[in-house]
Order: sequence, then C-alpha cells, then structure tokens
Amino acid sequence: MLNVFCLRSLLILLYLIPATLAAQNIQWQEIYPGVWKGVAGKPDDYDLLKAAEITPSSTLQKLSKEPFPLDKAEIRVEQNNGKTYLRLPLVKNEQLFGFGLNFQTVHQRGRIMQLHADHYGKTDNGRTHAPVPFYVSSLGYGVFVNSAKYIDVYAGSNVRKDSKNPPEVMDRNTDKNWSAHPYSDAVEMLIPAQGIEIYVFAGPKPINAVQRFNLLSGGGCLPPRWGLGFTQRVHRLYTSEQVKQEAKAFEEKGFPLDFIGLEPGWQSKSYPCTFEWDKSRFPDPAGFVKEMDAMGVKINLWTNPYVSPDAAIYKPMLPFTGSHTVWNGIVPDLSMPQARKILFDQFEKEHVKIGVSGYKIDEVDGFDSYLWPDVATFPSGRSSEQIRQTYGLLVQKHSFEMFRRNNVRTYGLVRASNAGGASFPYVIYNDNYSHEDFITALINSGYAGVLWTPEVRASKTAEEWLRRFQTVCFSPMAMINAWSSSTQPWTFPEVAPQIKAVAELRMRMMPYWYSEFAKYHYDGTPPFRGMSLEEGFSGNVSKEKTATDLEANPYEEAVVKEVKDQYMAGEFLLVAPLFTGQTSRTVILPKGKWFDFYTGKLVGDGEIITISPGLDQIPVFVKNGAIIPMMPALLHAPKAGQKVDLEIRHYGDQNGSYKLYDDDGETFAYEKGIFSWRDIQVEKQADGKFKGNISNAEIGKPSTVGNVTWRFMTQ
Amino acid sequence: MLNVFCLRSLLILLYLIPATLAAQNIQWQEIYPGVWKGVAGKPDDYDLLKAAEITPSSTLQKLSKEPFPLDKAEIRVEQNNGKTYLRLPLVKNEQLFGFGLNFQTVHQRGRIMQLHADHYGKTDNGRTHAPVPFYVSSLGYGVFVNSAKYIDVYAGSNVRKDSKNPPEVMDRNTDKNWSAHPYSDAVEMLIPAQGIEIYVFAGPKPINAVQRFNLLSGGGCLPPRWGLGFTQRVHRLYTSEQVKQEAKAFEEKGFPLDFIGLEPGWQSKSYPCTFEWDKSRFPDPAGFVKEMDAMGVKINLWTNPYVSPDAAIYKPMLPFTGSHTVWNGIVPDLSMPQARKILFDQFEKEHVKIGVSGYKIDEVDGFDSYLWPDVATFPSGRSSEQIRQTYGLLVQKHSFEMFRRNNVRTYGLVRASNAGGASFPYVIYNDNYSHEDFITALINSGYAGVLWTPEVRASKTAEEWLRRFQTVCFSPMAMINAWSSSTQPWTFPEVAPQIKAVAELRMRMMPYWYSEFAKYHYDGTPPFRGMSLEEGFSGNVSKEKTATDLEANPYEEAVVKEVKDQYMAGEFLLVAPLFTGQTSRTVILPKGKWFDFYTGKLVGDGEIITISPGLDQIPVFVKNGAIIPMMPALLHAPKAGQKVDLEIRHYGDQNGSYKLYDDDGETFAYEKGIFSWRDIQVEKQADGKFKGNISNAEIGKPSTVGNVTWRFMTQ
Repeated sequence: MLNVFCLRSLLILLYLIPATLAAQNIQWQEIYPGVWKGVAGKPDDYDLLKAAEITPSSTLQKLSKEPFPLDKAEIRVEQNNGKTYLRLPLVKNEQLFGFGLNFQTVHQRGRIMQLHADHYGKTDNGRTHAPVPFYVSSLGYGVFVNSAKYIDVYAGSNVRKDSKNPPEVMDRNTDKNWSAHPYSDAVEMLIPAQGIEIYVFAGPKPINAVQRFNLLSGGGCLPPRWGLGFTQRVHRLYTSEQVKQEAKAFEEKGFPLDFIGLEPGWQSKSYPCTFEWDKSRFPDPAGFVKEMDAMGVKINLWTNPYVSPDAAIYKPMLPFTGSHTVWNGIVPDLSMPQARKILFDQFEKEHVKIGVSGYKIDEVDGFDSYLWPDVATFPSGRSSEQIRQTYGLLVQKHSFEMFRRNNVRTYGLVRASNAGGASFPYVIYNDNYSHEDFITALINSGYAGVLWTPEVRASKTAEEWLRRFQTVCFSPMAMINAWSSSTQPWTFPEVAPQIKAVAELRMRMMPYWYSEFAKYHYDGTPPFRGMSLEEGFSGNVSKEKTATDLEANPYEEAVVKEVKDQYMAGEFLLVAPLFTGQTSRTVILPKGKWFDFYTGKLVGDGEIITISPGLDQIPVFVKNGAIIPMMPALLHAPKAGQKVDLEIRHYGDQNGSYKLYDDDGETFAYEKGIFSWRDIQVEKQADGKFKGNISNAEIGKPSTVGNVTWRFMTQ
Repeated sequence: MLNVFCLRSLLILLYLIPATLAAQNIQWQEIYPGVWKGVAGKPDDYDLLKAAEITPSSTLQKLSKEPFPLDKAEIRVEQNNGKTYLRLPLVKNEQLFGFGLNFQTVHQRGRIMQLHADHYGKTDNGRTHAPVPFYVSSLGYGVFVNSAKYIDVYAGSNVRKDSKNPPEVMDRNTDKNWSAHPYSDAVEMLIPAQGIEIYVFAGPKPINAVQRFNLLSGGGCLPPRWGLGFTQRVHRLYTSEQVKQEAKAFEEKGFPLDFIGLEPGWQSKSYPCTFEWDKSRFPDPAGFVKEMDAMGVKINLWTNPYVSPDAAIYKPMLPFTGSHTVWNGIVPDLSMPQARKILFDQFEKEHVKIGVSGYKIDEVDGFDSYLWPDVATFPSGRSSEQIRQTYGLLVQKHSFEMFRRNNVRTYGLVRASNAGGASFPYVIYNDNYSHEDFITALINSGYAGVLWTPEVRASKTAEEWLRRFQTVCFSPMAMINAWSSSTQPWTFPEVAPQIKAVAELRMRMMPYWYSEFAKYHYDGTPPFRGMSLEEGFSGNVSKEKTATDLEANPYEEAVVKEVKDQYMAGEFLLVAPLFTGQTSRTVILPKGKWFDFYTGKLVGDGEIITISPGLDQIPVFVKNGAIIPMMPALLHAPKAGQKVDLEIRHYGDQNGSYKLYDDDGETFAYEKGIFSWRDIQVEKQADGKFKGNISNAEIGKPSTVGNVTWRFMTQ
C-alpha cells in the first residue's frame, strides 16, 4: 500500500516535471564586497568553478563596498522542460562585451550564441576555445553563469510578449525604418540544468567588474619572467641536435630567446600520444634539457592528452577513460583524481623532473570531427558536454599544480579554457591565421579571463612577416610557431633588422610587462584588453543599412561597424597595429592627451587621428603622465636575483606614478609573500622640469633593480 | 511518516536519474511488411509523426515481406544524463544518404550534424529547412528516429573504445597513411529525451526503403495539375491592376502561366501580418481573384504566421501564443487546436472562400535572429525546440486540411518541413541563390520526403538566366520569384525564345510529371531524386589528400569528391544541368543504354560521357525502353475533364511499359477512388518495328486522353 502510493506519487511527479513552468526565487548572497552569488533551483553538482578548483584571491576582501548593480526583481529564473531559463534586464544604449573568446566581434549586444568549447570556425556563434559564460556591461557590472553545460545565449536579440520596453510595431510594406531586429530589453539564457548558480559583479566601472571576476578565479596568472621573453617552436621532427643548432643561431645572430617548444616529434608516437621521448630523435632527454638550460633556453613540450595503446600508462589509464577514442587514443576522464594522477605523474617523472619548463596542450577544444562525440560517456558519470566544457580547465589546473609541487613556475600554451581559468599560466592559440581575427581575439581575451597569442607562423611577404611579428611582441606570448614552416625571425632578411628591433623592445619592456602581469594576478586587471574598458573611450558600435537590393539582402540586414583593431597593453599603452597592405589607419584616442611611444610627442587629445607610420614600427601611444620601466635588451630574461639596470620613461605633461613589481621570477615564493612593490613617482619641479623618484625595496624583499636612469620623453 | 518516506525515496530517485547509464531494450514490432517500429524507454509524448497527424498509405499493406535488415543485437540504446543514446552498425564501404535537406553534400557517412529546423547557412551542419531524422543506406535499408528534438548525429564519424572493427593505430610522426578521421563502424545519435521511437525500413533496394518511409507519412503529395504548370511571383507591392497586366503579358507573348504568387504587399500590414487584404492595392479581392481565374491564372498568397497587433484575430489569438514575438508579431502555438482554428478560419474566410489557390508560408524555419528563441515557452507546454522542429509540419498539415474541407487541391510553398510531411502539397525554397546548391538540394529532397524548387530570381547574365530557368522546369515547381526584381521570362530578350521553348516543354511533359507525382503519392517514389537510388549507378564518393602544407591544412584533411550535379526526374529521365560558365561537363550514366531526350540517339552504356550541349537545351538522358507521355504546349494546365491529345514517346531498342495516371486534377475525388491508371505498352514487332498500345480507361473512371500519336524516338 505504502509502496503503491509512493510509486503513484512518484510517477505523477516524474510526469509533471517536464511540463511545469515555475518561476524560481534566486537566493542572493554577497560573498565578497561587490560580488553576489545567486542560486536558483538545483544547479548541477559539477560546474566550471568546481572543475577549476579555484581559490578566490584575498584581494577580494579589500574591495570597495558597492550597491547591487541591477534591479533584483528584474532578474528572472524559470524552469521549463527540465531546463533553466534566465533573464536579465537591458536598457537603451547599454553595450555588452564578453561571452568568451570571440574572433570577429567585440560588441555582443544583439547576438545569439551557444557557448560551446570548440575550435574557432570563422563565425562567432559561441563555439570557441574559451566559451566563457561571463559578460560585462558598459554600465559597469558583470554577470557570470557558473555552468559547464552548453548555454544558449540571446544577448538582447529577442523580444518577449510582455516586455516592459517593447519595440515600435512597423509595417514593412510601407515603413522605411522597419528593422528585422526590433529593440530587445533583455539578455536571455537557456541552461540545460535543473537550476543555476549565477554571479553578479559590481563596478562602478566596467574594468572593476572584470577585476572582480578575475579575482574570484584567484586573480590572473603570474608567469615566470622568462615566459615574457621570446619563444620559438621548432619543426615537429627536429632532433635534439637540430634544436641546439636553432638556439645557437639565435645567440650568434643576437636574437632574444627564452624557451623553445618541441612539437609532436619529441614523442615516440603521437596522435595518439605516448608522452615518452623518442630515443631516435632525442637519445638523451635529460642531458639535452640540461644543455639547453645552460644556454639560457628552456624547453616546452607539445602534447595532447589522448593516450596511445603503446604508452606505458595505457593499461593503468584504461579504466578511467571515456567510451570513445580520439585518433585511436583513449580519453582520460580528468575530472577523476585517478586519471589525473596517472597522467601527470608520468609528465612529472618524464619531463618536469629533468627540467622541462612547460607544455603546449593541444586539441582539448574540439572540433567535433576530432574530439569525443556528445554521445560519449565517462566513468565519473559526468556528461560528455560537461567534460568538453571543462577539459581545458582540467589540463591547466592539474599541470599547474604539478609545477607548483615542484616549486617552479610554468608558462605554456593551451587550446581551451573557460571561466575559472584566469590564474592558470597558459595562453590560448589556434589554427586560424587571420591577423585581423587575432587582434580581435586579443581584445576579447581581456573580457574572458584568458590570455591569447597572435602567434607568427609563415608569411607570404616580408611586410606580413614584420606586421605579425610586431603585434606578437605586444601580446602575452611573443612566439614564432615554426612547427611546419621552420621559419626563423630572420627568414625575411630585408626586414631582419626591424624584427630584431621589436624583439629587443619586447625584452627591454620586461619590467613593464612583468609588473602589468603582477597587477593581473593581484588586482585582476587584464594586461591586454579592449578599449571599452578604458575610461573616456567613445568608440561605439554603429549599424549601417547598406544593400537596399532585396535579392541580395532580403531582410535588409544592417552592417555592424565596431572598433576591433586597437587595444590596451597594460596600464598606459594603446597599440594600433597595421595589417598587410595597410599604409595608414585611424586610431580612436580616449579622452586626455596621448603621446607617441617612440618620440614622446603629443599625438592628440580624445580625438580620432589618422597615422601613416611606415613599416619599421608598430604604432603605440602612451597616456599622459605614463611611466614605463624598461631594462637593457638582454637575450634572456633575468634569472632569480639577477640585477638589471632600469630606464624609467615618463610621458606627457603631468605627474605620474607607477608600481613596479619584483620577485624571484621563477618560484612560488611570491605566494608566501616574498615579493615587493616599489613606488615610482615623477613630479614637476619649481623649475618646470620633471624629477623622478623610486622607493627602496623593503628590507628582505626581492629586488632586481640595478642602476636607474630617467628619461622624460616629452619635452 | 508515509510522506517522509515518499519524499526520501523520491529525492533519492531524482538524484539518481541523471547519473544512471542504463542499457535499454528496444521493443520491436513489424507494423507493416518491411516496416518495424522500435520503442525504448519513455519517448516524448509529442513527436514528428504526431505533429503531422499522419495516416499511413494503404499501399504499405501490399508491400513485400522482407527480413529485418540489420542485426537487432547491434542496435543499442542507452540512457545517460537524461538523454537517449542510439547506436546503429555500419560496415565497410556502406554509404549513407539523407539526414534532411542538405545543400552541399549528398554522401553523409562520416559527417556530424545537429538536426535543427533553420534556414540554410551555407554549411551542412544539420541546420536546414527540413532536418529530417531519416537516412537510407546503400545496402538497402532506412532508419528514422521519430523525435521533435534537436538530434545530434554522428554518421560514422567517431570510434568507440569497444568497437568490434577498430581502425588501425598509426604514428603521425612517421606514417604517411595517418588520417585525422579513423574508420568508424557505427552511426550514433544523441536524443534529448527519456526514450525514443525508431523506425527501420527494409529494401531490398535503397529506393524501396525510401518508398516505405514516404508511404508511412501517407505517401507523397498529389498536386493539382495546374500546380505542375508555370508560376510567377510578382513584385511585393504590385496592385491588382499590375497583377492583371502581368498575366495579360504572359498570354500575349504566349508564355505558359498557371498561377501567380502575391508577395507581402497584398496584406494591409506585413512583418507582422494581418492576413487581411490591403484595400488600397487590392480594392476588390473577390472580384480580382475571379477575374484572374477567368484568365486561367490562380492566385497564391505569401504570408508568415506572425500576427500583427492590427490583425482582427490578434486578441482572440493572444492566449494561444508563445512568450516571445517575431518581428513584433505574436506566435500562434499551432500545436493547439484553438490557435489553428483562429488562424485557418481567417484564411478560409478571407482567401480560400474567394478562390485563393494556395500559400507561400514563409519564415517558419528560422533563423535564430528572427524566430522565437529557445527560451520561449508555449501555452501547450511543449518546448520551444519541439515547436521549432514541427512548425513547418503544422502550417502545412492544417492549411492542407482547410483546402481538403473545401474539396479543392492546393500546391504551395513552405520554408520548413520535417519527417511526416511527404503528403503535404508544399515545395520548400529559401533565400540562398547558389545554382549548384539548388541542384544538390533537389537531389537530397528525394531522400527526405520533401520537395524543393531551384527557383529563378534575378540573374546577372542571359546565360545564367537560361541555365537557371532550364533546371527549374525540371523540378517540382517551375517558378520565377520576382518579388523584388520584377523579372519576367523575357527579361533577357536574347534568350527569350529558348526560355519559351523550355517553358513549353514543361507544359508538354505534364502527363509525365503528373503520373510521376501519382507514383510519389501511391507508391512513395520521389519524383526527383539522387542517382544513388538508381540501379546500376556507380558514382561513388572519393577522398583525395591534397594540400600537404601543414600550415594550410594542419590535420591533413582530405577533399571529398562526390556526384551532386545530376539527378533523376521521374522513372526514366536523367537530368544533367549546366551552370553559368560551363560549356561542357561529364555525366555518369548508370548501367544500361541511355539515349538523348531530344534526338533519341544512343549516348552511352553505363559509362562516363563528356557533353558540350550548347546553351539552347538542358541535357536530359533517357533510359532504354522508356516511355514518355506528352501533350500539346498549352498555356494553362487542362481543367477537370478537359481532353488533351497525347504524344507518347518511346526511347531505345527494347520494349517498354508505362502506367499513365488520370483523375480530375483539381479535387480530392481521387481519395474516394475516382482515378484511373492506364497501361501503355510498346513492343517490337516481327518486322523489327515498335508498336504501341494504350489500355482503355476503366468504365466510369476519369480520362483526359484525346487522340494518341506515337513517336519512336530511336530509329
């Protein structure tokens, strides 16, 4: 009787679940100043932050108190057919940025996407290497949905019948202003789960919302100093001898080089992988890594995580792998500790213990034709979808922890990430090779808590080679990827001097880069980011109705125009790269005076300028009062404790200040407080001249500062 | 106590559901000879066949008994994370066709898609106007998954760890034969539901599996005779006077014309729609339709189903609409009888009762930026996804029933359909305008139980105009869509005679077209279909490793080559169109002798021929022993009972037979058995000459046959 009753009530309930449409209350909790966590329904027990196993940054506690940035009553959650519906309000002229690593668009309002870990397939439809469910509003707040599912996002694209700000109804037959996209007053999302966990970040400025998001993931990563030097990835089948020759060539020609990446050929088998050295190409791995290290060049290893039947770890790994193979390799369920231990113990033993500095972890993004299908099952019981969305996080997190155990920092490459990954020292890359897309991705990386490199591979012309090389030197990782082309910095002799000059500039700016990354780590400020995060920037998106021919344009679609070819590099620098064929371009300067990086001359004040810089230099502009700490053009990054002289540059006509970061640059000692900030001040004196001052290092804190010289660039 | 117990057991159960991975038994039942229905788990209570409210064709009962075409033990169903996983076996060299209306591919083995009602966005990824979950194998069987959800399909693209026919493991470092796509021995699908309903269709030949699939949906549609004539869609803002002038112009110039399509301007408001006549452009709709009818020209009306606030039916419809609007129009939940009644009562009153012959139902496919989002909810409680997948079926089904109630046949256009829609007299079209894609779509329509028209809009050159016009005359609907361009058949005077010639040929072939459509209806044989359904056709798919440059082609992707530019039109005709710029092409002839349609001359025997046909004619080839019944080149299709003389053509050197279909061509009397088949026989006599014979019409059965003349084309 009791069982029958239960069974009946059970069946009724199971039957009802899909049909119910229930408004849900969101339980809000302010977990840090200006950071609110909201829970509605029953969220999945596995999500992005759990996969990343994040420890929020202690900085969060020190942030300013802010009011909740939205009307809570206007944030709606409903359950329908086993999925969760989320709605957030928008107001007129509000702009949205983010939703992961987009390549062709910066402004996201009005767009529709399904956030899905994948390679970039030449359209911004949500399928990307970092499908981060986070967006930031021009009004100065951020929203993050902590779900490891494929989330459908309607970023102000659709209109509800009960909208409070409905669009005007028009007759297409007669009204010239008719639009195929009526005004929408909400962001809507569909999360295939029984509930959601959502985070809202206060500003007051957009940049502050981004900082809070990054600090929640533990703050941005802090690379080793050498990670910010130059790196070359050699041909996939190079032997240890050829790699040594490559390093020697760099030294002889005087080109900086901090680490070399080995591509698939270092492994005894690849696609699928053994993770074991190929003894024919690398007879003495330990000796080889040691020799390279003595030359000041570290070794980075390409791999993907798919295990070859010929790998020593194949048998022990087998029980902890998914139902499907990738290129005949079994797929470790890295959400399981057992799988992680087997894989990374092997990495530690074979690579890290002999001095390998890091990895390029490939093909953890997609695409569908290569990766496991969504029908795959995993021994953890987690869905293929959840594993797909978090695989990039898992390989980063647990390889990072392996290096931390060994107290050596790493800086590598990965082809997938997601929310929660900001603190992992990995840079995203892909197979696409559009220079324009690369810059747009660099902009979007700053909204997504990830890093991106516009890597240089081959080029058709010396001009393209130089233009690409110039931008990669103003990115998180200055790299040539010659895995297939065997190109070298001097491949085009006619521009070799300019290549060398910008490579040296990259090295000279290391104190600046390193301090800006420290701010990424401690304050959550992205070192490379879009202009919309800059105060006083007015480069808005615009729509132009162009084609009136209904044959070619049946829905009278307007063309969107937006600024996606200039970006901020650190606190003070605006980079405006040129692409092949361009001899001049416009640059939109935010409010205030801006100065030429190379000459210190005033270039404009909150205006749009047109420049024709020639081929030699990449256009870089400096904020008024900026201070840029630089060092000599070394061929390798300074080692721990090595003193380097500083050239401290000041730009513009107003006082400036800067915080210079310092630590050993190689270990995790900074996590124990072994680091220092030094205050740099430049002030105008009575005689109208500027004078600079740098504070002393705190007693017992690391300092690499040698002699200091001051350069006041603007006279 | 009891409640507590129930609650606990309930919670435990709800908790367990997502995690369980349970192999399911499929309950198989042979519902017709060679048609099996399998059920596993708890399928959704709303699916494609329910939406289409199909009545299977009585022909099914008469089909041959066949063995189950697969090893049942190899068809696997599992439940995981609330979704259903389906797996079916594949063998080496087996080829797959179908999975909906694809535009760039015919061979589907190895492809990955998510079946999703949408406009075609230039890639075959499952998003299409007819995302039909049906495929047919070259081994002569078919499989259909009856689900109205977005189905993930892996059509032999991925490999299971436990595969019985695993691919060979290779080392990419050293093995030249390494492939990014190892051999896969299964079709896998992921259906987001608690269970599935699956249908398996026996052959023995692939065409038989397709027939069984179509017959299950009631058999293919039988258009009115006039539907197979010529149709012109006029400029969207034409007035009744301009439409009359258009019809007069056709008549004066002697171009055939059976119906004219009015575009949005006939409605008082459009985008969103009122479904009411605009009295400024159409002051007297009833009189206008009557006048046009007197000229032998019927009227077809464009519409989409999105209801304007200015429509008379807005208020009554409101309660039965979805949560979101489309172009400010409310979206009727057409899965609800109340919504259907309001909409189609309006259509019936305003249009059908005054003689309107049919509709062009637009924008029921997608795409996401225009249609309701997947977060939308509908009063029926059905998910946005289910409504999206079935909306095309619903508008077809219930507009068709409206015409049936009035006992007048219709033939119209629709932009979305799905499995179960074969019996609805609608032809699919879209906004894309690639002539090549159009032909590939025509081929794929034959595997999907839908019809497709390669409509002619504008053209850049007279050559393009003629080439497009030639193909549309060998398609289900011979149409110019001048909604925007106002083009007319004689727009390019230099080719007007050739245009007229092929338009007249379209009319002369009406007895053949009409009989072939009758075979679609009664036997399920698609009137237009791909070569793979033809016996003795050996045009297989091939892969070519081309680009060896790993920069350009990092995964060494091979290029797929397949035949997608020739198709079968009815039982006997092979059509090989030319595209702009082509002066010659190759044609792959199936086994047996083939003859030139225009001259009757032998062109080849199961071989690949190269032809240079010139601009005047579209290349058409005829099977040996073929019989093609033709009539005079009338300007309008014969009316009910109107007698027409027959020219019966015979091709080749062997005897032939043909079944000629006849009925009133306008009403549903055929559903009451008021139709006739007449046997045409051609036999070689003692003197070596051919002689033809046609059986008399059965007493009391309709016959439109006047005088018969015989033409033996091959001497």
